[in-house]
Amino acid sequence: MAFFIGNVLDSGGGLSDHITVVTKMQFAECVMQRYATKKFDGRTIPEAKVNELLELVRYSASALNLQPWKIKVITDKKVKEQLRPASNNQEQITTCSHLLVFCADADYDSLIKRLGALMKANHVPAEIVEKVTGMAAQFAGSMSKEQQAAWSQAQTYLALGNALNGAKSLGFDSCPMGGFDPKGYSRILRIPAHLTPVMLCPIGYAADKPGPKIRFPLSEIVF
Amino acid sequence: MAFFIGNVLDSGGGLSDHITVVTKMQFAECVMQRYATKKFDGRTIPEAKVNELLELVRYSASALNLQPWKIKVITDKKVKEQLRPASNNQEQITTCSHLLVFCADADYDSLIKRLGALMKANHVPAEIVEKVTGMAAQFAGSMSKEQQAAWSQAQTYLALGNALNGAKSLGFDSCPMGGFDPKGYSRILRIPAHLTPVMLCPIGYAADKPGPKIRFPLSEIVF
Repeated sequence: MAFFIGNVLDSGGGLSDHITVVTKMQFAECVMQRYATKKFDGRTIPEAKVNELLELVRYSASALNLQPWKIKVITDKKVKEQLRPASNNQEQITTCSHLLVFCADADYDSLIKRLGALMKANHVPAEIVEKVTGMAAQFAGSMSKEQQAAWSQAQTYLALGNALNGAKSLGFDSCPMGGFDPKGYSRILRIPAHLTPVMLCPIGYAADKPGPKIRFPLSEIVF
Repeated sequence: MAFFIGNVLDSGGGLSDHITVVTKMQFAECVMQRYATKKFDGRTIPEAKVNELLELVRYSASALNLQPWKIKVITDKKVKEQLRPASNNQEQITTCSHLLVFCADADYDSLIKRLGALMKANHVPAEIVEKVTGMAAQFAGSMSKEQQAAWSQAQTYLALGNALNGAKSLGFDSCPMGGFDPKGYSRILRIPAHLTPVMLCPIGYAADKPGPKIRFPLSEIVF
């Protein structure tokens, strides 16, 4: 029996019962097999899988654990059609299963308050909660509005990265897309003012094949 | 035999030879087990593993595939000691095995030129190379210097995310750190002006245990 662990997606049956069936990919495989999918086949990803993906996004790292992101999930065909002109008319918007709109959250007062409450609810000692929220408030206060926006955006990319690798690990595909009109999105989706759409991540099943993976050599990026 | 695939790190021997030994973690496990390590035990990660990690970083996604990042890798004890005061005196700087300094690259002219050359070397048709590099140049030109810096920084977080998950997948630990003095780092490490240190990522073997993983509920981040 040829049994390549880690490449088996949703396999099952026929294996001796002392072997736990692998249903998710190893990280290195996710990284190497993931690509920006240009064409989805229109099939719908089961909700349970989408929720697994959102859990991977939710557990992303973020500086000070502020998690300054929110994700709008679009499945409605009509809404996708409305959004496509605000997305350089890219077809992934309408052929994907779910469109994830990654928004950076710059409402630091609310983030810090909510984080403090959550830490307390998780039985973190009061002095640590105070230290962390105090540090976060000081840090947020030290930034201009533009810097706050840039900082929240950068953190949101960590969440996006988990979505990209996570989609591949769960057996479907994704396409990070920055070429869209954030103001158009905010208007169409009635996104609150403290949230800025920073990246789109349509997910679905690829109807295309990856091209060669072109990257600068290590000698050019490590110094 | 109890055989938990995906949790086995560097295991080997004693398995029947039709089973490929798993040496790397599944993505969901990396995400859930990764944490910001506060204390490293001082052991050195083998160079081959560090190189595997750098490969995972190298293959990160980036918008327009511009890969606007460079990573300074520090192992020298004396240099780490010099950097510690510029890092809020955090001990991970001196107890880690390797300190990765993630720098955002805002030299778009060079990035675009190098990407074009690399695409040609990979036999991408000339008209596609022109289209991609033209789009990148137009995009870069549309941004202010501040926007360019923020954009490169955000992309660099995608590479950082691969380092964080990648470290765990390879059997060691990491700690994303934003609390440091970028100008001090640039001075001490003689980092060229077009590169901005945006995040530190010390890696090593943890000498502490993760606390509870505290995250906002899905209902608060999905809307």
